[in-house]
Amino acid sequence: MYLTQPLHRALQQSPDKVALSFGERKTTFRTLADRVARLAGALRGLGMRPGDVVSILALNSDRYFEYIVGVPWGGGVLNPCNIRWSAAEIGYSLDDSGSRILLVDDAFLPVVEKLAAEGERPPIVVHCGDGPTPAGLLGYEQLIAEAAPVPDAGRRGDDLLGLFYTGGTTGTPKGVMIGHRSIYASGLALLADGLGSPGSVYLHAAPMFHIADFGMSCVQWICGNTQSFVGAFSPQGVAAAIERDRATHVLLVPTMIQMLVDHPEVLAKHDLSSLACIVYGASPISEKLLDRAMAAFPGVDFIQAYGMTELSPLATVCPARYHTAEGRKLGKLRSAGRAGYCTEVRIVDAQGREVPRGTVGEVAVRGPNVMLGYWNKPELTARTVRDGWMHTGDGAYMDDDGFIYIVDRLKDMIITGGENVYSAEVENVLAQHPAVGSCAVIGVPSAEWGESVHAIVVPKPDAATTAEDMIAFCRERIAHYKCPRSVEFVDRLPLSGAGKILKTSLREPYWQGRERQVS
Amino acid sequence: MYLTQPLHRALQQSPDKVALSFGERKTTFRTLADRVARLAGALRGLGMRPGDVVSILALNSDRYFEYIVGVPWGGGVLNPCNIRWSAAEIGYSLDDSGSRILLVDDAFLPVVEKLAAEGERPPIVVHCGDGPTPAGLLGYEQLIAEAAPVPDAGRRGDDLLGLFYTGGTTGTPKGVMIGHRSIYASGLALLADGLGSPGSVYLHAAPMFHIADFGMSCVQWICGNTQSFVGAFSPQGVAAAIERDRATHVLLVPTMIQMLVDHPEVLAKHDLSSLACIVYGASPISEKLLDRAMAAFPGVDFIQAYGMTELSPLATVCPARYHTAEGRKLGKLRSAGRAGYCTEVRIVDAQGREVPRGTVGEVAVRGPNVMLGYWNKPELTARTVRDGWMHTGDGAYMDDDGFIYIVDRLKDMIITGGENVYSAEVENVLAQHPAVGSCAVIGVPSAEWGESVHAIVVPKPDAATTAEDMIAFCRERIAHYKCPRSVEFVDRLPLSGAGKILKTSLREPYWQGRERQVS
Repeated sequence: MYLTQPLHRALQQSPDKVALSFGERKTTFRTLADRVARLAGALRGLGMRPGDVVSILALNSDRYFEYIVGVPWGGGVLNPCNIRWSAAEIGYSLDDSGSRILLVDDAFLPVVEKLAAEGERPPIVVHCGDGPTPAGLLGYEQLIAEAAPVPDAGRRGDDLLGLFYTGGTTGTPKGVMIGHRSIYASGLALLADGLGSPGSVYLHAAPMFHIADFGMSCVQWICGNTQSFVGAFSPQGVAAAIERDRATHVLLVPTMIQMLVDHPEVLAKHDLSSLACIVYGASPISEKLLDRAMAAFPGVDFIQAYGMTELSPLATVCPARYHTAEGRKLGKLRSAGRAGYCTEVRIVDAQGREVPRGTVGEVAVRGPNVMLGYWNKPELTARTVRDGWMHTGDGAYMDDDGFIYIVDRLKDMIITGGENVYSAEVENVLAQHPAVGSCAVIGVPSAEWGESVHAIVVPKPDAATTAEDMIAFCRERIAHYKCPRSVEFVDRLPLSGAGKILKTSLREPYWQGRERQVS
Repeated sequence: MYLTQPLHRALQQSPDKVALSFGERKTTFRTLADRVARLAGALRGLGMRPGDVVSILALNSDRYFEYIVGVPWGGGVLNPCNIRWSAAEIGYSLDDSGSRILLVDDAFLPVVEKLAAEGERPPIVVHCGDGPTPAGLLGYEQLIAEAAPVPDAGRRGDDLLGLFYTGGTTGTPKGVMIGHRSIYASGLALLADGLGSPGSVYLHAAPMFHIADFGMSCVQWICGNTQSFVGAFSPQGVAAAIERDRATHVLLVPTMIQMLVDHPEVLAKHDLSSLACIVYGASPISEKLLDRAMAAFPGVDFIQAYGMTELSPLATVCPARYHTAEGRKLGKLRSAGRAGYCTEVRIVDAQGREVPRGTVGEVAVRGPNVMLGYWNKPELTARTVRDGWMHTGDGAYMDDDGFIYIVDRLKDMIITGGENVYSAEVENVLAQHPAVGSCAVIGVPSAEWGESVHAIVVPKPDAATTAEDMIAFCRERIAHYKCPRSVEFVDRLPLSGAGKILKTSLREPYWQGRERQVS
């Protein structure tokens, strides 16, 4: 089981099928195999040795996927850089991973200039955009045209496939080491769970550097399905791509779903009838948003997948049948689903012991999909993966049917007057308020309570409301101690590259110079 | 990925669901987990150490499945004995595997008596039948009742799960070492290919000692589905079990399908409407028989799976869509399908080089499902598995879409006058003759041609035909040199435990004292 395997299979079974579709540019599997073998040859010519890390900093494109397959084909290791990171953070991941080669598209040339100004790093930059190649950079198409194809290096099993830097929302970035077997096992298990089938067409709408999109595309890649791309998410771009490529499957994070349903006029302009399945995840979704999304995309299966970079990314799946009107009666919609077909999931206490059903603890996951470890961080790896169990840092409880309910990042838990408050619960209530567009709930310092519950709200356009109104709305619905003691209104919330709300940024002004107690 | 993993998952997700149904006896997952943990404890009490082989010689039953899960749970290794083998062959596998414990049901007590008479082997015999336990044997239910449960030993990955002795049709028996990961990867890939889904009910109709049934039940086991059992195949027993347990999936070898369609009166007596999928394999099927079967089971998906013990057992799958009236137009029905989602398949020459499409060569398969090797036969293992590729000994060609067409066991190829004749091709023609019930084609010694083509035919009841008629029928349809030069009529063909026609037995009278040249 290895990432280049599906290319061999597709070449054997359907060489003339379109593998990649990006705007007007189509690439068959036969051509893809040739280009991948040449790209691998070119990278080897540039000095890539077995196990060397080659980075990319680019928007979504067909060439991004060629990079994903071409680097391991040539014996190298991937490092898909977070496009939302600063030049300093990108530089950190290049230095930390020892990347000597970086692929960059037009959008991120300024970042590369900034990096170069700081000391000629990385030494080799390949320009994979469609604009003119700047002086000093190598042209992607020219490299491919001039290189001789090389055979697949045959990396497989526990060989390192890629480093996926994570930690945008908390602490120092960590390079998560994902093996070939891990990503394949996760993909195969998701395929077995119905997240694809032969003939599906996958649209890359979420950023490709992120393991969520990477993992979902792997499901389709195993099947030999066509992949379609939009450079970056926009309601217009996604709707147009679905129509053009007859896309059937797409992964969206809740903020993207929100933007789509907020633009019914865009959806109405396009034929979206090919769409069969929206997989969502990466952060919790409010029931209300899900309702709106299901109304906007009638007949489309909604499937929730919960996971994280360290799990390649599968932990649990909540299948479509629990989302339908009939299925909702089973009461599992608010869950993140249950263990996928290659994973084991437990809720454990601080000592790693399983807690009783209904009790909140930490989600722990075991399986072939667990990362190989954190790059150059053996102690952190040993603390995180114990006896094969990846300790996720997410708080959840499990019901009698094995469904887990994520209550919060453990670090996001607010301890107020000795009571635990899970911000997701408060956010779910606030989201039901007719004036609330989006919101985040954090703990802020309180002399009296240690922490107190604070809500940050983006109101809907033209909506008039007050903090008192918000607090009263919550008090009617949840325990007093869980309700916000203060509310602030803002124009927008800061988002991470994966579309998660950056709670660290929100907390920062309140906690400067203080130490926050987290479990 | 390990064989006991689905039990942990089912216990977490659906403890009160029926796991095993055998006649009136139902076992929930909760009870199964308790019984498995006690069986493991009992076996440990009898001296089973980690990696020790525990054998079983029994017809299908719920207890057989408890053995399959209980032995690895306790740290042991399986050896499911071929129920068609002689006492001498069983004795060989017990000795070769070093089994000190044997489970036996009522049907095979005479074999155990014979073994015991030859020297007290194996030392410990557990009686798992429903009749009275004979003196000197241990009672299965009593062992379970008295044993303390033990925790799962946690064997996984490349740990040895079981020895599956094979070679009934050719040569000395070989213990095929199957690892935990191998069987799980094969099952997961078959699940991803649509051979099961949550809620399916699997009927064990084929013998459980065989990897074909073992592998198919693993697909359902991963899903946490109910398993139903018939002690041994009979049209009546299978039809009754489908009706009673609302079975949806069953694996049948062609000889079993033949027996079912030959008894329409049995099928008519039962409600078989739950049946959704018949997986067939283990030997080629004639188009005519498939036609009859599809008429007898309207609306049922037919899926062909091709594989072998050494592949746990998946190699290729020919999905249902190629079997329908519409799908047949694609012309893939005669194929064995194409590479499953965890396998790579190539057709290679004697030097292991891939041959051009359409050229007959040997089927070679690579993937996580390949066996760990032959037990105590490192040289044979090295000859058979080269650079990760299992060389199957089966002859086939591949078409432009990656579908493979098994032409024959390479050893079954007949070389006559320098021409290669694949017996399956001749058999497929003969099977179309209205007077032919079943048939086998072998090579017999010929002074003139080296070998000559010889057909052995079981005529249909009351059918009158002649050898000349058979030969003329073939000459109208295939090249002269492929047609039988001689035909003999018999009452029945000798079958192996897996339902394969025993060509070695058929050849024996012709080849006694001679050496047959095989590639």
